[in-house]
Amino acid sequence: MSAKTDAVVVIDGKVYTLSGYEDVEYLQKVGAYINDKIAEIDSVDDYRHMAINMKNTLVEINIADDYFKAKSQVEKLEKDLAAKEKEIYDLKHDLISNQVKTESDEERIKELEAENKELLLNKTRLEATLEDTLLEEKKSK
Amino acid sequence: MSAKTDAVVVIDGKVYTLSGYEDVEYLQKVGAYINDKIAEIDSVDDYRHMAINMKNTLVEINIADDYFKAKSQVEKLEKDLAAKEKEIYDLKHDLISNQVKTESDEERIKELEAENKELLLNKTRLEATLEDTLLEEKKSK
Repeated sequence: MSAKTDAVVVIDGKVYTLSGYEDVEYLQKVGAYINDKIAEIDSVDDYRHMAINMKNTLVEINIADDYFKAKSQVEKLEKDLAAKEKEIYDLKHDLISNQVKTESDEERIKELEAENKELLLNKTRLEATLEDTLLEEKKSK
Repeated sequence: MSAKTDAVVVIDGKVYTLSGYEDVEYLQKVGAYINDKIAEIDSVDDYRHMAINMKNTLVEINIADDYFKAKSQVEKLEKDLAAKEKEIYDLKHDLISNQVKTESDEERIKELEAENKELLLNKTRLEATLEDTLLEEKKSK
């Protein structure tokens, strides 16, 4: 947590010295946002001559509405995030299964190549033996 | 958008009829939340005897603080979500590469199996020919 700061903020035309652990920029941002909300209310003819307390409550309701909208967005995003995490988990699972399959396929290819080499060698040997035998036979006739 | 509703909400001991497109439960929730914020301020001795306008501003600041905290959580979650989407994209890419490799491995296994079968058949034929030749030779001696 940063050190306690004092920020002079003008809200609704009054000067406040806000003291808190937030930085000055943040407190100024909060002040400007509240002033915007007040100006929004003041811009509506019906509200301009409203009792100050009612106007304050209206400002509070508007800010609280922004808060609840943001909060429900947080909840939606958290659900989306959980769904994405599930998707990532499933994809990683598929990827591992696939890698296991690749390893066993590669093993099988090596085996078959070795068998193939052995069979080719055998074939060559047999062909040579056959040739020799036929040659011997010819000679002996 | 649902139909416009009227909700009777008590805020700071005063009765308000709120009219809006939100449902009654939502408006009641907003009212209860604001009352909690007021009660929070009132529970602090230093604030209890504060001018009502200052107290209102303090309530507004507290609600706005909740809003900005939720908003920054939204921003953080949106970033997290984008990172997860990137991860999903990469994983899907890896999965596709892997599937291409699996297909080519399976093709190679089929090829090698066919070659082996052919070589085995050849071997059997050669062995039979050799046996016949040797038998002939034996007979002719």
